[in-house]
Amino acid sequence: MTTALSEPERSPLEAFMEERRRRVEAALDAALPPETAWPGTIHRAVRYSLFAGGKRIRPILVLAAGEAVGGGDADLLPLACAVEMIHTYSLVHDDLPAMDDDDLRRGKPTSHKVFGEAIAILAGDALLTRAFHLMAELPGEADAVAIRRRLQATAILGEACGMSGLIGGQVEDLESEGRAIGKDALERLHRAKTGALLSACVRGGGVLGGATEADLHCLARYADAIGLAFQVVDDVLDATGAAETLGKTAGKDAAAQKATYVSIHGLAGARSLATRLLEDALLAVAPLGDRGRHLAGIAQLIVERES
Amino acid sequence: MTTALSEPERSPLEAFMEERRRRVEAALDAALPPETAWPGTIHRAVRYSLFAGGKRIRPILVLAAGEAVGGGDADLLPLACAVEMIHTYSLVHDDLPAMDDDDLRRGKPTSHKVFGEAIAILAGDALLTRAFHLMAELPGEADAVAIRRRLQATAILGEACGMSGLIGGQVEDLESEGRAIGKDALERLHRAKTGALLSACVRGGGVLGGATEADLHCLARYADAIGLAFQVVDDVLDATGAAETLGKTAGKDAAAQKATYVSIHGLAGARSLATRLLEDALLAVAPLGDRGRHLAGIAQLIVERES
Repeated sequence: MTTALSEPERSPLEAFMEERRRRVEAALDAALPPETAWPGTIHRAVRYSLFAGGKRIRPILVLAAGEAVGGGDADLLPLACAVEMIHTYSLVHDDLPAMDDDDLRRGKPTSHKVFGEAIAILAGDALLTRAFHLMAELPGEADAVAIRRRLQATAILGEACGMSGLIGGQVEDLESEGRAIGKDALERLHRAKTGALLSACVRGGGVLGGATEADLHCLARYADAIGLAFQVVDDVLDATGAAETLGKTAGKDAAAQKATYVSIHGLAGARSLATRLLEDALLAVAPLGDRGRHLAGIAQLIVERES
Repeated sequence: MTTALSEPERSPLEAFMEERRRRVEAALDAALPPETAWPGTIHRAVRYSLFAGGKRIRPILVLAAGEAVGGGDADLLPLACAVEMIHTYSLVHDDLPAMDDDDLRRGKPTSHKVFGEAIAILAGDALLTRAFHLMAELPGEADAVAIRRRLQATAILGEACGMSGLIGGQVEDLESEGRAIGKDALERLHRAKTGALLSACVRGGGVLGGATEADLHCLARYADAIGLAFQVVDDVLDATGAAETLGKTAGKDAAAQKATYVSIHGLAGARSLATRLLEDALLAVAPLGDRGRHLAGIAQLIVERES
């Protein structure tokens, strides 16, 4: 009786996300050798960053998109793990002294602070390699349709984290530091650096789940909208969070010559852009009906989050 | 008449290798966006290292193994390009200041000397990503058999360059610096760092070419032998090259506490090990008969090379 009373109220979306997050954690753990495997250092470094408390939003998007079109865990979990490994590798490399030179990530010392630069570079390489290796591992009984879908999803993933996606975005980000860039250049940067991988989660999940052409069209439009919304909201939170807690104004980014959606559109403009993108995401998945409810909920969470 | 006279004499093996090398160069060029693609820096950096004059021994092994069992260019070239991209990424990252800190590679400044550390790290990441992306790109008309083989070859590649292969070997190499390691540890290090990728070239080429189980058994044994032979000969050349040109003895590696096949087996012992490994490689491909002649020739070249 008391346990029933003390259980927190969870919305169906929260329950969905929490349950999927647990499956992803277990699958990630199973996809890696134990820390005792040879040579130990690299396994410890890989696990240190991969299990550092990420929200697993990308794998959950894979599962939500794939399940919306009829896919199950066996179809979807390899990509769910792969996108989280790739997201983590990109953080480990971005934090390196030669890149953004960050000492802390999610409140913990970054990989190179704990393991040294050489191992941090190799741990990132290992996560990227394992992601694609995982996509190529198939149960012996897999049929021709499953194999073809796996390869298609891998191609989507490869494009998203390559030179016109994740890596290109990071290069552009490095090169635009201290330089004023315009609205179009900013959008291109974020579509590559953040949007491409988020979009690959949704479209790749759709492909693996057996999406029809019409479904895929909906998913792609949804992915496009949330990919941008994610960054717009990040910029808004950055500006307003700083304003509230440090007494600084939203102008600090502009002063630091860092182009953001707030510096370009203003705070009100950025907020209304986020709202428009959310509306677009909801419209995009409307044709999926009830199947698209988790995707709709996640879009809402992304835009309405406060951290 | 004069042109006919002035043409150099080439053995059938040399002609085979030169012709395949040209195909690989063209395929690598076609697999990458032009330097003018956005963002330019990363494309210049990737091409700088990929076209720095490598001998393309790994892609040639893919083609030789795959052709020996009946494969053609359409089956084999994606893996041939992928292994060269992965070999190049590993060199770019190994040369970084945090790793081996090398300024020169094949007589040219290393990537980080030309483009800076951040771009060198990202160029390595980009080559690794493009390698796996390429493996996932299929012509629309590919049949179920070709698709299944492609995925199998990708899994072999992923294993070879992961934490129990290329990356594990590099970690072990970093950690064994200045430490005495024994014969077994040295062999494990080199099987991972050099042998695994060479083996993946031969076995992956075999899978893509449609090797039977019996063929694959021959190819795996061949790959095992040449993978080790490659490193043994490297160590012999290092020791004797230094002895001849610098007046130093083969003992210098031992003095630097770097374990090599020469420091462990002695020069004569290392040479006879290389000969035994060559014999094993030739025996391994003997059942392939004439189909295995190029593989046999390449093994001979690896062991009898002088640089």
